[in-house]
Amino acid sequence: MSIISFEKTVEILKSLDKIAVICHANPDGDTLGCAFALTRALKKSGKTVKVMCNSEIPKKFSYLLNNIDVDDFIPEYYIAVDVADLKLLGDEFSVKYGDKVFLAVDHHGSNREFAQNTFVDSSAAAACEIIYRIILALGVEIDVETANAIYTGISTDTGCFKYTNTSPATHRIAAEVMELGANFGMINKIMFETRTRSYVALEKLAMNSMKMFFDDRCAIITVTQDMYRKSGSDESEIDAICAIPRQIEGVDIGVTVKEKSENRYKISVRTNEPFDASQICAKLGGGGHPRAAGCEIIGSLDTVYDKLLECIEEFTQ
Amino acid sequence: MSIISFEKTVEILKSLDKIAVICHANPDGDTLGCAFALTRALKKSGKTVKVMCNSEIPKKFSYLLNNIDVDDFIPEYYIAVDVADLKLLGDEFSVKYGDKVFLAVDHHGSNREFAQNTFVDSSAAAACEIIYRIILALGVEIDVETANAIYTGISTDTGCFKYTNTSPATHRIAAEVMELGANFGMINKIMFETRTRSYVALEKLAMNSMKMFFDDRCAIITVTQDMYRKSGSDESEIDAICAIPRQIEGVDIGVTVKEKSENRYKISVRTNEPFDASQICAKLGGGGHPRAAGCEIIGSLDTVYDKLLECIEEFTQ
Repeated sequence: MSIISFEKTVEILKSLDKIAVICHANPDGDTLGCAFALTRALKKSGKTVKVMCNSEIPKKFSYLLNNIDVDDFIPEYYIAVDVADLKLLGDEFSVKYGDKVFLAVDHHGSNREFAQNTFVDSSAAAACEIIYRIILALGVEIDVETANAIYTGISTDTGCFKYTNTSPATHRIAAEVMELGANFGMINKIMFETRTRSYVALEKLAMNSMKMFFDDRCAIITVTQDMYRKSGSDESEIDAICAIPRQIEGVDIGVTVKEKSENRYKISVRTNEPFDASQICAKLGGGGHPRAAGCEIIGSLDTVYDKLLECIEEFTQ
Repeated sequence: MSIISFEKTVEILKSLDKIAVICHANPDGDTLGCAFALTRALKKSGKTVKVMCNSEIPKKFSYLLNNIDVDDFIPEYYIAVDVADLKLLGDEFSVKYGDKVFLAVDHHGSNREFAQNTFVDSSAAAACEIIYRIILALGVEIDVETANAIYTGISTDTGCFKYTNTSPATHRIAAEVMELGANFGMINKIMFETRTRSYVALEKLAMNSMKMFFDDRCAIITVTQDMYRKSGSDESEIDAICAIPRQIEGVDIGVTVKEKSENRYKISVRTNEPFDASQICAKLGGGGHPRAAGCEIIGSLDTVYDKLLECIEEFTQ
């Protein structure tokens, strides 16, 4: 288990063959972008490589699979990309491959160093920024499909360059992969300008549930299992909804109450400064980051609201 | 009336004093970003300069006015920024200053060359890209406030780098103004992550009005004067709503029917290829671009729907 340099990472990649590049489970644009970009680059340099993931790849990312031959072989080396902890490989994969990961390339400062060799650059907004630099260092041509994969990771992990993790380097890499042919218009339309019918129906129901508290500085929306049934949606579409309450003008504490099963609720809290979401959630037995945190509350919806409001009231005093 | 080069534009700017930089009416982030960036730069080089606009500056742009002394003087020169046509200066300004504009700096290919000297670069995603290059050529320091102004124009005119007008140069300028201190997190939060209470209420009403046609390939939403009253919103918040119907998965023709007054409706049509919004609207006496166009229909809401559907049906055959 050692932390290695960028140069050593490139050297290792040059030396390996029969490689499986593993994404985290419930894959997002960054882990998939990394996996497909690195796989394409390593295949171009003559190696036998494939992408593996414990979960199905969401349909919206299907363009990442364009024009790639799937190699059928038993891997000798496993490389994890954008995976901070072996648990995140997924239930089956973490057991099966957890102790076999030879190299991890990641941008999470919280990386648990579960791989034999780990390279972390936490200044990268997306792990795809690191993969781009690695491919340049490998001296392999970046084709249009590889450029698409890198752009996907960068764009999705930064909310299309909106979030504060975006750096000047992020923009410069975007410029370079655009020049290499990345179809950024198509990618951004899929990622940011498409709402499924079921999502629209779910958002409508969720918005109707919104309640305001503490002089409208706190907004709470509720998503129930019944709303999933009525809308045809499911938990995979909940992320965009959790972002909404804090977006309301004047709201500094945005809360989403998600019914997991009868009398069991998962709570997502997003805050603006000076409110600390992780402190609010810690009081309720959860945790997270200062701007985004979570916890679980057992009880009826009334109980959940009572507990939440009692806890938030303390912080708004 | 002449089209001039970039070098001549810089030369003119160096030679002038007592300048009013005029925005277009109903100002957006790009025209305001241009005006404040250029004004700050010219003031730094010792000139007397002010920003003028026929409309009030929307509250969300108020940070652009930070730390700027307003010069009180009678302008000798008027410079229009991001203004394609003198009509766009506004009712009062186009009469008062329309024939006095000495220099226009713009990125609209459709610029009507109403100024004595016009510089147009239609490859620029935002006019602020041109202003940035001009300030560099003037050799004036770009301070944090100027960087904020330039970032504002670039980010708002590209939908935060999402739209296909974004170029590698756009990203590189973003990187540079970020290095100069642009507070992109604050700007993007205001522009893209804030929903007013009235907007949320209006969107909810509008979404409830959505109807689907032609095997769900066409979505139509209606915004009535009554909805403005009920939500406390107004036409200034309608743009984000017009974008919604086409964002629905599977929808290629997204239509927003906006009640202007009794029995008078403005129609906004947004399409995906191969549907041509300008052709659809031309049939109804309007016009526009292939992906976004508009027209007006007089009659009851039922009449409007009948006319629209009859017209759209032809194109979906």
